[in-house]
Amino acid sequence: MEQPLMLYNTLTHSKEEFKPLHPPFVGMYVCGPTVYGEPHLGHARPAIVFDLLFRYLKHLGYKVRYVRNITDVGHLEHDADSGEDKIAKKARIEQLEPMEVAQYYMDAYHDAMDKLQVQRPSIEPRASGHIMEQIQMVQEILDKGYAYVSEGSVYFDVPKFDAEHGYGKLSGRVLEELFANTRTLDGQEEKRHPADFALWKKAAPEHIMRWPSPWSVGFPGWHIECTAMSTKYLGKTFDIPPGGIDLMFPHHESEICQSRIANDCTSARYWVHNNMITINGKKMGKSLGNFITLNEFFNGTNDLLEQAYSPMTIRFFILQAHYRSTLDFSNEALQSAQKGLERLMQAYHNLQGLKAAATSTVSVGDCYQRCTDAMNDDLNAAMVIAELFELSRHINAAKDGKESLSQADIDLCRKTFDTFAFQILGLTDEASETPHAEVINGLMDMVLEVRQHAKAQKDWTTSDQIRDKLQSLGIAVKDGKDGATWEWRQ
Amino acid sequence: MEQPLMLYNTLTHSKEEFKPLHPPFVGMYVCGPTVYGEPHLGHARPAIVFDLLFRYLKHLGYKVRYVRNITDVGHLEHDADSGEDKIAKKARIEQLEPMEVAQYYMDAYHDAMDKLQVQRPSIEPRASGHIMEQIQMVQEILDKGYAYVSEGSVYFDVPKFDAEHGYGKLSGRVLEELFANTRTLDGQEEKRHPADFALWKKAAPEHIMRWPSPWSVGFPGWHIECTAMSTKYLGKTFDIPPGGIDLMFPHHESEICQSRIANDCTSARYWVHNNMITINGKKMGKSLGNFITLNEFFNGTNDLLEQAYSPMTIRFFILQAHYRSTLDFSNEALQSAQKGLERLMQAYHNLQGLKAAATSTVSVGDCYQRCTDAMNDDLNAAMVIAELFELSRHINAAKDGKESLSQADIDLCRKTFDTFAFQILGLTDEASETPHAEVINGLMDMVLEVRQHAKAQKDWTTSDQIRDKLQSLGIAVKDGKDGATWEWRQ
Repeated sequence: MEQPLMLYNTLTHSKEEFKPLHPPFVGMYVCGPTVYGEPHLGHARPAIVFDLLFRYLKHLGYKVRYVRNITDVGHLEHDADSGEDKIAKKARIEQLEPMEVAQYYMDAYHDAMDKLQVQRPSIEPRASGHIMEQIQMVQEILDKGYAYVSEGSVYFDVPKFDAEHGYGKLSGRVLEELFANTRTLDGQEEKRHPADFALWKKAAPEHIMRWPSPWSVGFPGWHIECTAMSTKYLGKTFDIPPGGIDLMFPHHESEICQSRIANDCTSARYWVHNNMITINGKKMGKSLGNFITLNEFFNGTNDLLEQAYSPMTIRFFILQAHYRSTLDFSNEALQSAQKGLERLMQAYHNLQGLKAAATSTVSVGDCYQRCTDAMNDDLNAAMVIAELFELSRHINAAKDGKESLSQADIDLCRKTFDTFAFQILGLTDEASETPHAEVINGLMDMVLEVRQHAKAQKDWTTSDQIRDKLQSLGIAVKDGKDGATWEWRQ
Repeated sequence: MEQPLMLYNTLTHSKEEFKPLHPPFVGMYVCGPTVYGEPHLGHARPAIVFDLLFRYLKHLGYKVRYVRNITDVGHLEHDADSGEDKIAKKARIEQLEPMEVAQYYMDAYHDAMDKLQVQRPSIEPRASGHIMEQIQMVQEILDKGYAYVSEGSVYFDVPKFDAEHGYGKLSGRVLEELFANTRTLDGQEEKRHPADFALWKKAAPEHIMRWPSPWSVGFPGWHIECTAMSTKYLGKTFDIPPGGIDLMFPHHESEICQSRIANDCTSARYWVHNNMITINGKKMGKSLGNFITLNEFFNGTNDLLEQAYSPMTIRFFILQAHYRSTLDFSNEALQSAQKGLERLMQAYHNLQGLKAAATSTVSVGDCYQRCTDAMNDDLNAAMVIAELFELSRHINAAKDGKESLSQADIDLCRKTFDTFAFQILGLTDEASETPHAEVINGLMDMVLEVRQHAKAQKDWTTSDQIRDKLQSLGIAVKDGKDGATWEWRQ
């Protein structure tokens, strides 16, 4: 019997069968990047994990509306309700209009995501483009008595929410503990309770990003944007609001509060959270000196990196771990991912030229079904990759003549690779996707033929010269019983 | 003496010296695409022409803030104040949320612009993201008595503006003539005068894109977005609002009215308009059956096209005509542009291997200065290209040993190409930019050496076989006095 898709729901601490609200439609809302710096590893993991989810839901036949916003206003330093707006601060430093900064880093984010083969969302709304919707929602929360105005700012009344609806269901945070742990930050004195969070902030005179509102000229709090935009584009309740585990508190918890009051309902059903990334065992951070941008990975231009790592290596590495596990980046781990990915792509390449035998001497079993089962089990891409490695072993053995595969098994292997490696995991064969792959293949045929001819004449000097020259071009020649083959050197 | 940059100003019907308001800063606002369909030639010309202007201003040392908006709301069919919103209509047809349609075509537009080497603007604001600013500006115009509310919509009072400020200065349109020529369109009966244009439109019940306002739940008129967004990001008066000549009336004329009243000043100083594109002598249009998207050009997938034309061929073709001339697309013209571009790139390639002589036998003169003069004369890129062709002729003659060039002249040629062909015209050598150009060059060295060897042995069979095989891979071999060279077949 076909297993249904099970997703781990942070809200219930258990894997639940995924049943969309309005099949065949699925609504997904991801809190996207705050565009004030170069895209880095911390952007890559959630984007790739939710791309996996997006692709798999489409594979299952759902029509997915995937909304991923751009936070270009309202995200203050310290992720709290004080400090300077992250984008405005960068603008002040660089003497630019804040929207110029947002545009630059938004473009950089898009470029990096394209390289990582992250499919584009259906709608990418910008927080600054939905100020009216946010003001309207703040007004609704005020009208319902769950917020108050203080010195021109508006705060959500967390104790009142807690008493009537229970606060902290997602993160497990208890209000009394929050109270004890909160630092006294600038602006906090305006709040009735330290756990209260800003829905609207009055702008200080030097704050350049500002809009009029019934309460003050100011800007929206960080949390309200996602509730306002998800309501606008997906409705009051939608299916999946995936996000990094760092967003669970306070961001997602605040969204739950806002939505419960403004929309009188639960905002979302399946709270899917990916775990964190560490670098050599430590949290990544600019202040920790271990911050690596995606472009630095792609170009190898960071002292922490021994080499460049291609976008597909990064993607493959991220997919090799389950999304709910922490993931540690190191040169060794990335080099191992690079080799693994090349092994898979080489096996797929070998599969194309494989001659079918009458019967198979190895059992590939129902590899397609096993991959499906793995994906249905809370998106276990790591297990899918293990299956693909196992298939690669059989394919390579068949290519070397040590085993044989029937036509049916060859077809099944191909279907499994096409569906899972390429379509769902979203991997690409970077080497074969160059615009001139055909030309290179043609030229290599000619060069290898010349070398074969030289060898037949026992002209070892020429044949060695050709091999060396190819080596210097990054091409490795392998002599086999049916003649020579070549591959890109690893 | 250095000539200053002269730009043709539609407002004064003359070339004027360009003097920015606040040097070294320059503000440029381009009315960008209405994102409801595939990007086509009509998008390519203004984008490339204003990219030329953007690049040249930066070359002159200006710090340019280039704002190009996305029209994702308010642009009604017929470019008039009635009919259905273009994006909402497409959404209804495809059963999508309007913003899903806008996102899809915005992404497609960005992809096409990237391929055409159009540099990205500094800020790309979306009309739907600036509803508040537009409402605020409409209110200012109402407060100053130059607009009126009618059935929940707000219209600009053109006769009043005309009486006090004079209407039609940009386009030369006279109010009485407009009156005579205006068709009676749906919604027109709400207006006091047929030339009045909408600042805000009340939404019909079936209209899905809608926002609250003091006058009705509705959406902004098309013209107000550009005035609101240019004011926000560039100030009340800025330097250049370039656009297609089709935008001059009514769009730019309306902007002038809005800005004069809301901001009490002239909105912009240099009105630069590019001329239209025709296809085989006819206006391009979906209803005329000669509509070709940019992707169709790139892939050759349109019955009107005899072949595919690369993005650089399209770019080169557009730059070969002066931006104020009409430009007619035909297969012949594009094929000729393709050959011309290849000739330039081949000459640049030849230049790299050129050996300097003690003296030059031809005069390249001060080609760099002549290119500068051409650009300063109202962006005469066509003249720059003619200069580059002339240089190519000398370079190729020098390569063939028919003429010679001194080191100083070689350096000047290189500087002229680097600055004008690549940096300012924004051309790229598509053939040499493949990721594996080095590998292909290396393999070709080996193959041509084998062929040379065969020829030396008078083994014509082998040498012909190699030539034919290369031909099938799209590579042409040319035998010269210093051995064979190769190039991509044209």
